[in-house]
Amino acid sequence: MKQPVALDAMGGDKAPRETVAGALLASAAGVPVLLVGDQEKLRAELAAQGGELPIVHAADVIEMHAQATEVRRRRQASVNVAMRLVKEGQAAAAVSMGHSGATMAAALFTLGRIRGIERPAILAEIPSDAPSGKVHLIDAGANADVRPRHLLQFARMGAAYAEIVSRVSAPRVGLLSIGEESSKGSQLVLEARPLLEASGLNFSGNIEGRDVLADVADVVVTDGFTGNVVLKLAEGEARVLFSWIKRALSTSLKAKLGGLLVKDALRALAARMDPAEYGAMPLLGVKGPAFIGHGASDRRAVANALRRAWLMAGAGLVEALADVE
Amino acid sequence: MKQPVALDAMGGDKAPRETVAGALLASAAGVPVLLVGDQEKLRAELAAQGGELPIVHAADVIEMHAQATEVRRRRQASVNVAMRLVKEGQAAAAVSMGHSGATMAAALFTLGRIRGIERPAILAEIPSDAPSGKVHLIDAGANADVRPRHLLQFARMGAAYAEIVSRVSAPRVGLLSIGEESSKGSQLVLEARPLLEASGLNFSGNIEGRDVLADVADVVVTDGFTGNVVLKLAEGEARVLFSWIKRALSTSLKAKLGGLLVKDALRALAARMDPAEYGAMPLLGVKGPAFIGHGASDRRAVANALRRAWLMAGAGLVEALADVE
Repeated sequence: MKQPVALDAMGGDKAPRETVAGALLASAAGVPVLLVGDQEKLRAELAAQGGELPIVHAADVIEMHAQATEVRRRRQASVNVAMRLVKEGQAAAAVSMGHSGATMAAALFTLGRIRGIERPAILAEIPSDAPSGKVHLIDAGANADVRPRHLLQFARMGAAYAEIVSRVSAPRVGLLSIGEESSKGSQLVLEARPLLEASGLNFSGNIEGRDVLADVADVVVTDGFTGNVVLKLAEGEARVLFSWIKRALSTSLKAKLGGLLVKDALRALAARMDPAEYGAMPLLGVKGPAFIGHGASDRRAVANALRRAWLMAGAGLVEALADVE
Repeated sequence: MKQPVALDAMGGDKAPRETVAGALLASAAGVPVLLVGDQEKLRAELAAQGGELPIVHAADVIEMHAQATEVRRRRQASVNVAMRLVKEGQAAAAVSMGHSGATMAAALFTLGRIRGIERPAILAEIPSDAPSGKVHLIDAGANADVRPRHLLQFARMGAAYAEIVSRVSAPRVGLLSIGEESSKGSQLVLEARPLLEASGLNFSGNIEGRDVLADVADVVVTDGFTGNVVLKLAEGEARVLFSWIKRALSTSLKAKLGGLLVKDALRALAARMDPAEYGAMPLLGVKGPAFIGHGASDRRAVANALRRAWLMAGAGLVEALADVE
């Protein structure tokens, strides 16, 4: 019997209302959830929402404006307690919508790094034209400055995730650069490329920004600065384009009428590009599934995050990564 | 009387057919154009298209696969001749759809750098929610690795361009990063921020990927690696999203009918996001207006590039930048 997913129910801008609501949604969909946080507050919230879930008490919570350096000494913070449950085998995965830096720090301190991985990295799934319907971007923001060998480690983790969790066989790995030629790119990319070529991965060479969402790669490897910009631009551009479409469909009577007819089709597409669809991103390279969600997450994002954590927890990725080195 | 725009008519995948066709379109729209390239070939192409334009002969042409280092010694290459026409005052601006690296090298060698600018940079205009309808991204790809002071120089050039060419008063300058807090970002960004704060520019702080197309900044400053990824992702994502929309609008009879009614409105939007709309990007920081276009440019892109070059040539940007330091 798999252990439940531990949710830092106090983390996030809309906690505990939306975290509890999301946990109830996920639970109703068959994902066992353990709420971690202030017992009294969580009980009251569950009562208000008319639901029941197990609670593990945590007296403290890392606020959104706290320093990530405080994480280590605030042992009773909900995010730390959630990670400890994973470490001790009482939870299959941990999810937090709180302070991202604090969640990363808690995962690192409590779970520790997998041998051979110097820098745990965030993996983001972005809807794309690849056969699996998505591209796996790594690092999406954990490490702003990295060395070439870190990119190789990111590539191994991203490929393992794509293969084991997303079930893409022999995932194509692309190195994000500014030209397909091996002679182009930053110093970092130029030095990383031979490492990837010799890696034994299904390396498909450099990939440009224009092909990130095309059917060119299943895994896109980059540093956490560029990756975070890519992830957020992809989200932001979709939002802006759909707002323009909405405006364009109100400019004439003909467009308005057509707009009514295409509304459902467009809404489904906009939902696909909505980050809440993914809910949270895994931090790969730590010894246990840990997910980092957006502070603004609503119940749908929380529920989706819990579902993804549950899916990954059962896939054996951490074990597979531990075997890599 | 302003001098004409010199077009490297031999540069680009579709030269000279599309370069000549684009030049004729621009000329018909009131932009004086000078074709630079092989006299015989250009005369034949003009005759075939039934148009007339002045030609300056250039015996050589830098092929798309050439090394940028060859540019200096191939003095008779069309891109070098076009730059010399600018330097000698016989052309108001130079435009090439050929080898980007070669165009940059030709501009640097022939025109030289403006004092105070160590690294000329490419400026890209991307459609956005800003009041001017666009955001000015600099550097969009000329310098993959830069130092903090180069970002300050990019900021000055981008702001001057936005003010003088796009007529945005006191343009808001954002520094692309991975968090709005000044404590977040790569080492490069952390060191560049105080320089921007002390610059006297209308610096609005760090800007995240999600806000690049929002009404948050008029100028977005970044290194040429990140900038090139941003530019190409913005183009690529628009292409992918519109292809998904097209597909979504053929899934049901209702959607198909609606699709017919909204086709014109969506087509206008897709055109707005089409890079051919801009045609070419200026290389700022050299002593003369020089534009770098995409190798795949068709006649519309060529014509738009010539129009933009003409606009910038008359604006006095180079003179204004020379006064900055």
